[in-house]
Amino acid sequence: MLKPPGSLGKLEDLATRYAVVRGAPSAADDPRIALVIFAADHGVVAEGVSAYPREITRAMVSCIARGVAAVSVLARSHGVPVSIVDVGVVGEEVASDEAIAGVTLTTSRVRAGTRNLRFEAAMTTAEVERAMAIGSDQARRARARHGATILALGEVGIGNTTAAAALVCALTGLAPEVVVGRGTGITEEMLATKTQVVADAVRRIPKDAAPLEVLAHVGGLELAAMVGYVVAAAEARCLVVLDGFLAQAAALVATRYCPDVANALVASHRSAERGSALVLEALGLEPLFDLGMRLGEGTGAVLAASLVRDAVRLEREMGTLAMVGPS
Amino acid sequence: MLKPPGSLGKLEDLATRYAVVRGAPSAADDPRIALVIFAADHGVVAEGVSAYPREITRAMVSCIARGVAAVSVLARSHGVPVSIVDVGVVGEEVASDEAIAGVTLTTSRVRAGTRNLRFEAAMTTAEVERAMAIGSDQARRARARHGATILALGEVGIGNTTAAAALVCALTGLAPEVVVGRGTGITEEMLATKTQVVADAVRRIPKDAAPLEVLAHVGGLELAAMVGYVVAAAEARCLVVLDGFLAQAAALVATRYCPDVANALVASHRSAERGSALVLEALGLEPLFDLGMRLGEGTGAVLAASLVRDAVRLEREMGTLAMVGPS
Repeated sequence: MLKPPGSLGKLEDLATRYAVVRGAPSAADDPRIALVIFAADHGVVAEGVSAYPREITRAMVSCIARGVAAVSVLARSHGVPVSIVDVGVVGEEVASDEAIAGVTLTTSRVRAGTRNLRFEAAMTTAEVERAMAIGSDQARRARARHGATILALGEVGIGNTTAAAALVCALTGLAPEVVVGRGTGITEEMLATKTQVVADAVRRIPKDAAPLEVLAHVGGLELAAMVGYVVAAAEARCLVVLDGFLAQAAALVATRYCPDVANALVASHRSAERGSALVLEALGLEPLFDLGMRLGEGTGAVLAASLVRDAVRLEREMGTLAMVGPS
Repeated sequence: MLKPPGSLGKLEDLATRYAVVRGAPSAADDPRIALVIFAADHGVVAEGVSAYPREITRAMVSCIARGVAAVSVLARSHGVPVSIVDVGVVGEEVASDEAIAGVTLTTSRVRAGTRNLRFEAAMTTAEVERAMAIGSDQARRARARHGATILALGEVGIGNTTAAAALVCALTGLAPEVVVGRGTGITEEMLATKTQVVADAVRRIPKDAAPLEVLAHVGGLELAAMVGYVVAAAEARCLVVLDGFLAQAAALVATRYCPDVANALVASHRSAERGSALVLEALGLEPLFDLGMRLGEGTGAVLAASLVRDAVRLEREMGTLAMVGPS
């Protein structure tokens, strides 16, 4: 290769990871990225755990369909096709003709938001399975529609950092005090409430609960869909590029449910959301960058997926010194 | 904006920086990037300070012209036009018809490599001025040819980490032992030689030497061209996106020569080359990422410039919640 060994640092590791996951030399094809964003609402917002009202979830679905969200701008900039999937938003469905070219909007609601996880299981086992099946199906579509081998994911869902924090606490045994963060930006008082809500929720879960039971107890529909997506993407030998705290929490459930998944995961960034660094540690993943982002939507995943594609392209397209003379 | 305040972290700072440097709201135009790579040889390679022979510099100019270098792959991936400028390579000139579409090759040699900085001034004052003028001219061309307002830079030049280390030591007073690194990958023994060479070179410089005198004593032709490029880009109110250790050392000379330049600088990455973190500290700059890269060529600058463009695009293209309903 046309460079001193190791001089491209982590980009070289990414290219190797890609080749290993694909089970093929990375030079085979120019790699394609697809981003799927899962959206759902959360009954737990009734507890006052979020700075924004529940209506924002539906509004964000509409914004992503219309291509005006932050993730839309980044995806356009990096040539990444976007799918937005409503797996359980509350309120009127966003009309499919709102979606601009290059964006696929799917409405496939398992139910209109989860139950309040502080007091009862957020989902039934059947609901978890349905949401997971939607997620796996989306991974298959990303392969079929776009020929994607780098599968990125993101989410929108007001209240979902509460669910993710509860998942992380339940699966790792970490205390709510160290995991629960400010989400979209709550006050000190709301943070205390949110921490209490997570503690209450985790206390309800039987000690020996399996990963998918934990998911049913304190997860969310978009989180369950992400678990299905991650597992199916890894099974299809695609590289899975995570986003922030939510995608990381879903990946944690996925690896507990199906440990092989771990090999296919790439962390994008360390989110500014408090629990992010802890989940990355639990997953044994090093983030590629840390830009202080905490927006979700897949914004970090798009940037990281673009880096993975660059790493593979370097491997494919770089020449050798032999091309130009000296040996 | 369609996001909680601060949730895009450093991308928000970058958009603000861009607007301030441009002196205009960042929404004005979609920002364009240009990358200029300066190439030259170094008399100091006679001291055995590099893992690669001098001929590699010319070979790399050819590779960049042909679009097969690492930086070529990244620039193509991010839609960045590349100019490669030979300001003092040794050997036969690379024929202009070697350059593929999208790459501009300019041969404008001030002299065939510098003198050996261990024993004498690498360049005369007149040579420094000529190289700087070539650099400023390239900044103007990047503006005129590509409408670029994000000006990235890179370099190739076997032996140039020795020159850059000497510049940094002379300008900051830091000891060669903490600044000199392994460049393209030298042995422990060569590192000891390289450190001694830098110490000898720095000792020759008069205590009260002005920045451009220091540059003449221990710099390089591509380093001088980079200084001219950085100063002209900043004067033209463009954002200057640095690369690794070499571009950082050139920026240090530029800020000592013309302190206003500092406002226009964006650091891309912390290079794995030892001195990089120290120069960034001297410049008061925080790198955007740290991927363990140490290749030069502008590889880090392309990735960072793409991030800056993303930051500005987010500011320009993101919608408002008012577009979709709830207030």
